[in-house]
Amino acid sequence: MEATINVTVWNEFRHELNYEPAMKIYPQGIHRVIGDYLSKQRLNVTTATLDEPEHGLTDEVLNRTDVLVWWGHIAGDEVRDDIVEKIHDRILGGMGLIVLHSASQSKIFKKLMGTSCNIKWREANEKERIWILQPNHPITEGLGEYIELAEEEMYGEFFDVPAPDELIMVSWFQGGEIFRSGMTYTRGKGKIFVFRPGHETSPTYHNQEILKVISNSVHWAAPVKGTTVPVFGNVKPLEKL
Amino acid sequence: MEATINVTVWNEFRHELNYEPAMKIYPQGIHRVIGDYLSKQRLNVTTATLDEPEHGLTDEVLNRTDVLVWWGHIAGDEVRDDIVEKIHDRILGGMGLIVLHSASQSKIFKKLMGTSCNIKWREANEKERIWILQPNHPITEGLGEYIELAEEEMYGEFFDVPAPDELIMVSWFQGGEIFRSGMTYTRGKGKIFVFRPGHETSPTYHNQEILKVISNSVHWAAPVKGTTVPVFGNVKPLEKL
Amino acid sequence: MEATINVTVWNEFRHELNYEPAMKIYPQGIHRVIGDYLSKQRLNVTTATLDEPEHGLTDEVLNRTDVLVWWGHIAGDEVRDDIVEKIHDRILGGMGLIVLHSASQSKIFKKLMGTSCNIKWREANEKERIWILQPNHPITEGLGEYIELAEEEMYGEFFDVPAPDELIMVSWFQGGEIFRSGMTYTRGKGKIFVFRPGHETSPTYHNQEILKVISNSVHWAAPVKGTTVPVFGNVKPLEKL
Amino acid sequence: MEATINVTVWNEFRHELNYEPAMKIYPQGIHRVIGDYLSKQRLNVTTATLDEPEHGLTDEVLNRTDVLVWWGHIAGDEVRDDIVEKIHDRILGGMGLIVLHSASQSKIFKKLMGTSCNIKWREANEKERIWILQPNHPITEGLGEYIELAEEEMYGEFFDVPAPDELIMVSWFQGGEIFRSGMTYTRGKGKIFVFRPGHETSPTYHNQEILKVISNSVHWAAPVKGTTVPVFGNVKPLEKL
Repeated sequence: MEATINVTVWNEFRHELNYEPAMKIYPQGIHRVIGDYLSKQRLNVTTATLDEPEHGLTDEVLNRTDVLVWWGHIAGDEVRDDIVEKIHDRILGGMGLIVLHSASQSKIFKKLMGTSCNIKWREANEKERIWILQPNHPITEGLGEYIELAEEEMYGEFFDVPAPDELIMVSWFQGGEIFRSGMTYTRGKGKIFVFRPGHETSPTYHNQEILKVISNSVHWAAPVKGTTVPVFGNVKPLEKL
Repeated sequence: MEATINVTVWNEFRHELNYEPAMKIYPQGIHRVIGDYLSKQRLNVTTATLDEPEHGLTDEVLNRTDVLVWWGHIAGDEVRDDIVEKIHDRILGGMGLIVLHSASQSKIFKKLMGTSCNIKWREANEKERIWILQPNHPITEGLGEYIELAEEEMYGEFFDVPAPDELIMVSWFQGGEIFRSGMTYTRGKGKIFVFRPGHETSPTYHNQEILKVISNSVHWAAPVKGTTVPVFGNVKPLEKL
Repeated sequence: MEATINVTVWNEFRHELNYEPAMKIYPQGIHRVIGDYLSKQRLNVTTATLDEPEHGLTDEVLNRTDVLVWWGHIAGDEVRDDIVEKIHDRILGGMGLIVLHSASQSKIFKKLMGTSCNIKWREANEKERIWILQPNHPITEGLGEYIELAEEEMYGEFFDVPAPDELIMVSWFQGGEIFRSGMTYTRGKGKIFVFRPGHETSPTYHNQEILKVISNSVHWAAPVKGTTVPVFGNVKPLEKL
Repeated sequence: MEATINVTVWNEFRHELNYEPAMKIYPQGIHRVIGDYLSKQRLNVTTATLDEPEHGLTDEVLNRTDVLVWWGHIAGDEVRDDIVEKIHDRILGGMGLIVLHSASQSKIFKKLMGTSCNIKWREANEKERIWILQPNHPITEGLGEYIELAEEEMYGEFFDVPAPDELIMVSWFQGGEIFRSGMTYTRGKGKIFVFRPGHETSPTYHNQEILKVISNSVHWAAPVKGTTVPVFGNVKPLEKL
């Protein structure tokens, strides 16, 4: 009964081509690991990367995408502004967006938030525990009380974003910080999930619980078919004045 | 793939037995009209009423209920406190609750909100327009910009409830008031939807859009299977101190 | 004990110079009427308009402004992008912003929201009632249950903005629509209040209750002195790893 | 210009009378340490304890209290239900409430929340860091990025409460858990602040930053004078139907 969801997994795909520690963990790119998992979860998956023409995000690809998964880091400035505009329009119109790790500093996410999206951070391969604060949420389906990652980059508060619609996860880090690691937002008709973990030199996207969260979030963020089409602009009165 | 949802439609069922205007519109009771519709929406429906033993809400019924739909009005005080406690426990454990019209002054809803739940009101068969503020929400699937009801009781703000998780609908009334008519709350693991319309002498529950909202909300409020079971009480450290 | 708050009232100031109906109601400009009132409320007021050099918003003016009040309409596109950037930076750093009427379609507000900020509207001089939903809020201090305006432009939902931090007011319009008319947001350290009424050909800013709300909101939005200065970027661990 | 705020600091006051570790730290009771500090912050302070007649909360005391500060633990069940009702009524009418540490399991707080308010916990004198997530909030005025407590009881999520109006602080604990430690709620016209730290055998209420937060929160929670008095019940139409 449920229609197939079209997911596009976008990856900057630079670290995995030229930075040894990332190459070892994700030899074919982060997008391939995530995409392969999602393909097994009743999802119709496309991948796209920065250095493809139009970053792999042609009108044809964007228009059929129900949910866009985004990973980016050092080359965020190279993403074309006109394509960011198109993505933004699609999200306001109902396309879902899953913002992974350092994509929380991407152009598209900053444009959606209206803030700096600044964080503090540390690369020390420290332990992270992602605690679940919404035990009744579709995004946390199938999880225990927390997800433990043995070695991750630390992200710390203050994370300069608006208060989320829902705070679903908060991370504990060995070095003394905490971070709001799973948050939902709505912008226009688009649903957004921000999910913190996923450093390029940690094997995080091989973790089955992390992959489960991403899959859950894609199902959650898919546009509701047949919802209201808002009318904007000059209108006549409903009632006689 | 989706499991069947067990819905129990509870109705006070007094007006329809002894108050002519209600008898004419709902000769077999509000619960039957709502229950019949939900039965056609892939839902497994039970009905229960105040004057049945244990108000029709035996442990057996409550324990298998995924979502409880509640309509009550003048006899709210007759609902047994011990049964209210059981319902409350079930909601915190994950059972959904749909609060219809005057059930917003019921014992169970007040207990969940922690406030007086007071409103202002007027019976003048005036026009109501229920505007949709969340065009991307599963509860508003299939609707237009607003639902119009030709004749309804007015409910007006200030409605003394906590700020909702989501404000989904606001009503306009001919006589000059507005009301937050569709709101969601979470209490424990339970999802709650409060839906304003449904006066006993208006044919509101024969309106297909109103019924659609109720059905949508039941699907939305059904407990997510397999979510986190929180651990409470005294615990050992995760980390060595 | 309370420090003086520096308010800058910014106005596009075009209608009042060349459109007769606006000239009659606000012969010296909307900014003068609002500014004169605020000057009497323990506030230190500056005014600024679009056609002044740098729109009257030099670095010197912006840097000393605690709260910026903004009215704009037809010439919103003429506001320089570099000045919008400066305003944005100041808001994230703690400056308050009061967004009046059609300023809800201004560059700065769209940038802060990340959405289209689209609305529906109608110029029919119809009655508006602004209902108070937060009777305990500093912004509604001194008001009754609602504010009535005999003749205003209609704004209708869906208003394409993120869910607010607080929904304080909802308007009822004679012609059948409703609108979220008083909302607060936080972006970075900046507090924002969006206040719907104020059409250029309605005498709204001569209404004492409307002026009271603006004054209340300025006091509310003023930056809290001495709050946390967040640290961003690469940091050392607090704990020994 | 600001009116004096009347604060009542209520304490169970049992541990400090018969449990040596608590007696040593708070020989005259937690209420005296907090009360003495608040007296120096332009506040008019009364103290009250469980074993006084009517728990020290006579109608006369309650009716003049603007903000009630509450500390309770093992004897929460001994608080009289009729007095809890009176406190509840006063909060809905606008009295502020500051909920300290284990008072998050008190009758009054559970009644306001509508949930179990369950937590996990551990007494191991471990390190706590309370991170500030709202650097622009009056409650965090004067603080740095976090408050550090060398030895505290641990409280861990899942904390079974509704989503707060504002999440202001999140604690990191040495043993691996996190907790939402500073949260605001509104119930009726009453403002509520829940503040986690304050175990009876830790010197937490001698910490100047903790005391500063309590004082800030009392100023924040004081009722706004002159706000709207909602009208409830049957009303006439504003407009001619």
